[in-house]
Amino acid sequence: MVQIKRLNSTDSSFNQALQQLLAFENAMDESIDTTVAQILSEIKKRGDEALIEFTNRFDHVNVTSMTELELTQDNLQQSLSSLSIAQRQALEHAAERIKTYHEKQVAASWHYQESDNTILGQKVTPLDRVGLYVPGGKASYPSSVLMNAIPAKVAGVQELIMVVPTPNGEKSDLVLAAAAISQVDRVFTVGGAQAVAALAYGTKTIQQVDKIVGPGNAYVAAAKRRVFGIVGIDMVAGPSEILVICDGKTNPDWIAMDLFSQAEHDEMAQSILLSPDAGFLNQVAQSIDKQIDDMPRKNVIRVSLENRGALIQVQDLDEACAIANRISPEHLELSVDNPDKCLEKIRHAGAIFMGRHTCEALGDYCAGPNHVLPTSRTARFSSPLGVYDFQKRSSLIQVSEQGATKLGKIASILANGEGLSAHARSAEYRFKVE
Amino acid sequence: MVQIKRLNSTDSSFNQALQQLLAFENAMDESIDTTVAQILSEIKKRGDEALIEFTNRFDHVNVTSMTELELTQDNLQQSLSSLSIAQRQALEHAAERIKTYHEKQVAASWHYQESDNTILGQKVTPLDRVGLYVPGGKASYPSSVLMNAIPAKVAGVQELIMVVPTPNGEKSDLVLAAAAISQVDRVFTVGGAQAVAALAYGTKTIQQVDKIVGPGNAYVAAAKRRVFGIVGIDMVAGPSEILVICDGKTNPDWIAMDLFSQAEHDEMAQSILLSPDAGFLNQVAQSIDKQIDDMPRKNVIRVSLENRGALIQVQDLDEACAIANRISPEHLELSVDNPDKCLEKIRHAGAIFMGRHTCEALGDYCAGPNHVLPTSRTARFSSPLGVYDFQKRSSLIQVSEQGATKLGKIASILANGEGLSAHARSAEYRFKVE
Repeated sequence: MVQIKRLNSTDSSFNQALQQLLAFENAMDESIDTTVAQILSEIKKRGDEALIEFTNRFDHVNVTSMTELELTQDNLQQSLSSLSIAQRQALEHAAERIKTYHEKQVAASWHYQESDNTILGQKVTPLDRVGLYVPGGKASYPSSVLMNAIPAKVAGVQELIMVVPTPNGEKSDLVLAAAAISQVDRVFTVGGAQAVAALAYGTKTIQQVDKIVGPGNAYVAAAKRRVFGIVGIDMVAGPSEILVICDGKTNPDWIAMDLFSQAEHDEMAQSILLSPDAGFLNQVAQSIDKQIDDMPRKNVIRVSLENRGALIQVQDLDEACAIANRISPEHLELSVDNPDKCLEKIRHAGAIFMGRHTCEALGDYCAGPNHVLPTSRTARFSSPLGVYDFQKRSSLIQVSEQGATKLGKIASILANGEGLSAHARSAEYRFKVE
Repeated sequence: MVQIKRLNSTDSSFNQALQQLLAFENAMDESIDTTVAQILSEIKKRGDEALIEFTNRFDHVNVTSMTELELTQDNLQQSLSSLSIAQRQALEHAAERIKTYHEKQVAASWHYQESDNTILGQKVTPLDRVGLYVPGGKASYPSSVLMNAIPAKVAGVQELIMVVPTPNGEKSDLVLAAAAISQVDRVFTVGGAQAVAALAYGTKTIQQVDKIVGPGNAYVAAAKRRVFGIVGIDMVAGPSEILVICDGKTNPDWIAMDLFSQAEHDEMAQSILLSPDAGFLNQVAQSIDKQIDDMPRKNVIRVSLENRGALIQVQDLDEACAIANRISPEHLELSVDNPDKCLEKIRHAGAIFMGRHTCEALGDYCAGPNHVLPTSRTARFSSPLGVYDFQKRSSLIQVSEQGATKLGKIASILANGEGLSAHARSAEYRFKVE
């Protein structure tokens, strides 16, 4: 039997229990951080030479030049050709849907003109060059390549450089095929902090990028934190989470499997179900026990559900929505008759899956929206990865001669109030001579 | 005479000289970081009690309760009433223009429906609660209150909590008046790392916020870096910079004063002028010498111009634009006949000031666009502070019964390819039974 926590929102200890359930400290390991600092410094100083050394050491390969660490477009096409037709079509179909959805996110430049001909606006431009980190080994996910690369390309990023370590020389055809499909420009088989450093500082072979995105292990996360400011980075993600709100009328096997699909990611993943129907919660608990032994990743699922999962009885769907806002989950599934009514009350969630037929797995792969989502309550202030992460804005200000007098008078008073005389004088010089 | 650097883009050493000129390492002071870690930990553990202790110690005050550390809306209105009519009107006029401009940045939710009735979109919501850090003492800028508070309010943030230290109990009426005008909800006279900690963790009196914005000293910056992830933060800014491109036909006194207006901020501020006209560069150099002794902040201006400023002769305006992209300046002034032609070539800049009448000072105070801008080449990947920093997005996915079969087949293939069986099964459960 899976010992999953059972809570009831009417218990006096509920608030505290919920807080404990959600507690997760993304503590930084100081020894990892020290190692990473050394790696960054070596790459900054010695570039390609250090990159080759670290790659040979950490990935157990034996290369002597950067040429051996770059894959050609031909290599990527070979990986694509090696796939089964079904896999290739699935990847291509997913890519197409992701592209269509993200095209709606493209922001355009805008401006407006005032009556005195002063023009104000914003110019929107893509980033020049982006680095995409892709983990090697077991956590090698082609869907992650699509989700990170396609928004960058839709934004208009000219050069997308992917890094993916190949420990012991092992490559993933699925990952490289995904790179081909999403039109990645260059691929280097390097990883870890050394790959992040190469992208952030640039080497003779790898040009400095403007932003680094993509998931990685603790070394990669520590390296990204350290190079932030020199380049942009995406969020450093915590463990994945799902919160399901169900009115009790969905097949309990479906809901149990939805909880499994989050729990199978890793032992720290979190799956929580809220329902006003106590009988339904029992049915889901039974279904968990019934189905778990069928799952190839049952050991991971069990640890995740027992340590971090919960089935929570709530008073009604309104209260469920209020608790959802407190949890601010990465994934929120509204498995209810009228999901629109719940949606109105939801303020914080990474992605919202509406209706009984919308399981999270569809969004993870191919519905269109991004699967890179804010974790650990950061949906309170951050958004799914999107085209907006690969575009930036410049303010536009073109003040007319008449406007310079009008605005200059205000600026002069405020600048003098702040003791900044050169600001005031610079504005006053532009006053129109009457 | 001000010894400002003179460079020429045709010199063989130019690239290296430019790189040296721009070099700026925002090195973290380890002793500051250690102190900050202790302060954060005390506030996290002991809340208001620790906040009162640190405030008494660092701000040389003597309070015994949080009530003494909160200003009422009446207090803010009193500060507003104490201003001269000219100052009040200038602030109100600036606030109005900033509001009008930022209203154009409000993003709206969107969705689209596919032929099988699947609905995809994004729901856009404001952050619930935002903390605004305002420095006390000499760097106490009312314009900064407007620029940070107004976009948050335009976004729809329900509660805006401002913290501003009052060393020795000294308050700035201009700053508090700006808070009144921008409808700040609560104001606490606390500062430093302890104020950041109170906002990030919450105390009995100060509720936890979702994001902290606003400038501060090295302690505030270190604290913001450390609480990032628990709450959102804005960029940690480097020294302010201006790059002026001039065709040589603007009054050299105007351009010299524009360089001063940046240099007067602090000794690390950077002012650079690019012009194809060698004679004009000489005229500006002469004007600098002629005007500097008139400036109240002449000592700061001199150090800034001599250590970090430069007058650079370029071959033509095209080359000037190419160099501007390399510099990716915070402020870019296009003091030329046809600024639109230059604009087309500019990819990276925080704010672009177009035409001879548009000095930076107008944008700093009242043109409308934000004066919180990306510094130190971060305009390559980041944007001015805006309404978009106070809104976040949730993906919306509502898959129809028919769509669940179509998308489920793709998801199932891809999930199995990644070894995630529960993902596959969860999708397969939703297949339509024919």
